[in-house]
Amino acid sequence: MRVSDRIEGALGSALGVAQSAQAPAKLSEALRYAIVPGGARIRPTILLSVAGACGDDCPGLSDAAAAALELIHCASLVHDDLPCFDDAETRRGKPSVHRAYSEPLAVLTGDSLIMLAFDTLARTGRSENADARAAQLVLSLSRRSGMPGGICAGQGWESEPEIDLHAYHMSKTAALFIAATEMGAISAGHEPEPWRDLGALIGEAFQVADDLRDALLDEETLGKPAGQDDLHGRPNAVSELGVRGAKARLSDILAGAIASIPSCPGEAALAKMVRYQAEAIMPKLPEGYRA
Amino acid sequence: MRVSDRIEGALGSALGVAQSAQAPAKLSEALRYAIVPGGARIRPTILLSVAGACGDDCPGLSDAAAAALELIHCASLVHDDLPCFDDAETRRGKPSVHRAYSEPLAVLTGDSLIMLAFDTLARTGRSENADARAAQLVLSLSRRSGMPGGICAGQGWESEPEIDLHAYHMSKTAALFIAATEMGAISAGHEPEPWRDLGALIGEAFQVADDLRDALLDEETLGKPAGQDDLHGRPNAVSELGVRGAKARLSDILAGAIASIPSCPGEAALAKMVRYQAEAIMPKLPEGYRA
Repeated sequence: MRVSDRIEGALGSALGVAQSAQAPAKLSEALRYAIVPGGARIRPTILLSVAGACGDDCPGLSDAAAAALELIHCASLVHDDLPCFDDAETRRGKPSVHRAYSEPLAVLTGDSLIMLAFDTLARTGRSENADARAAQLVLSLSRRSGMPGGICAGQGWESEPEIDLHAYHMSKTAALFIAATEMGAISAGHEPEPWRDLGALIGEAFQVADDLRDALLDEETLGKPAGQDDLHGRPNAVSELGVRGAKARLSDILAGAIASIPSCPGEAALAKMVRYQAEAIMPKLPEGYRA
Repeated sequence: MRVSDRIEGALGSALGVAQSAQAPAKLSEALRYAIVPGGARIRPTILLSVAGACGDDCPGLSDAAAAALELIHCASLVHDDLPCFDDAETRRGKPSVHRAYSEPLAVLTGDSLIMLAFDTLARTGRSENADARAAQLVLSLSRRSGMPGGICAGQGWESEPEIDLHAYHMSKTAALFIAATEMGAISAGHEPEPWRDLGALIGEAFQVADDLRDALLDEETLGKPAGQDDLHGRPNAVSELGVRGAKARLSDILAGAIASIPSCPGEAALAKMVRYQAEAIMPKLPEGYRA
């Protein structure tokens, strides 16, 4: 089965568990709205690629891990879009959840998706007779999502008078990419530690690419309001290094990511996937910036 | 060790994991502010009482379960107090988290506490060599917290044009009491199913008691804004049955709760605890209502 089909299938199964004729209908709808149609699904794709490189001996569990990770990512987008944060009108080319459903339902959608992520891991751990791996997956996902070093911490830095830039980037963006590589390894019964650098480097590359896109592209292409970082005075690679500098930095980081891949049977295929993702995230810059 | 010391100790350990010198300081502070000093800690007390009745053969795990449950409860209070829900100025006699720290930090505090709850279960499952029980605990807690039947669903009903009253009460209030009895049993290696009714009945009693308090007591005694249900037009036992009717209903439910306790070595002690909790939740009504 194609990786994208595995991801959508696993997300569909997870969503099915959260829905029932006895549940409040609007919140049910909002959960699906926040998940489907998705973005690039880059985090679960990396997770399944790492699981594959490690042998993927329990594909039901790696599918669940991929879904859980994407659920947390989607939850973070819904909450980040709230009026008290980015107040985003649109997301993935359609109205943000709080615009489409209301602010209370957006808060609850995020909360419910977080719960559903952990439900998905524990439920599949039990059905696949893989409780120990499931507990390790819960631990990796919660650490990379919460405090002191997960995406909540990253967002929390934006309320500080002085930002620790390294901690900010590591938690705000890299954390869920580290979760992707860690959880891919854990799903296949491997230790997560050797896979952390790969996740951190992909995350760093993604942050720089996002900064480039945010600085250069228009709202229509982006599917969300452009220039948000500048608007909110958040630190970013383009204001620090310029466009050319940021592009050079992105290439360096990706080379480092490929070099960091631990020796394993699927090493070559995984390097190919990272190169492919690199192509996908490298923004197509306007003519003026190519010179 | 006293139950209350076990709960505070376990919450302190959990909070310690979420804090670090490298974390954003305000969010760190807000996490502690949302947890300590606590309310009655009634849910974790019930959890530990059920674990005790079931033999409590892995007290480290039941302590972690108690902490995780209370973390979810505190997270739900922080989010329910947000301006888009109750817009509560105070909670437990001090400013609500969003008033004390800001709305973004209140959203992130709730999210971080949810993550921390699952982290606590998985971490302790690994250290106590009890992964299977930990996975079952994650599953119980996520189901009773999220959609379609947990506290998120309960809050979600308030955005519906028509409310399914049974589903509303079961999810809004009873769900975390069901989690308390289920998780107490699971922590001690027992099946959760026989313990569900006890949790549901305690939850129902608590809802009626809360309705009585909310309808009758003033803001100072309550430590939060009074009359919120009336204000928001939410269904409640007092408007349905009157004060006397609601008090009679409360006594009936508690008798049913005690009768529902499964046969177990600690049955008598548990019945005593339920009676004690019943005393504690029964509101001391103003003179005019006693006749």
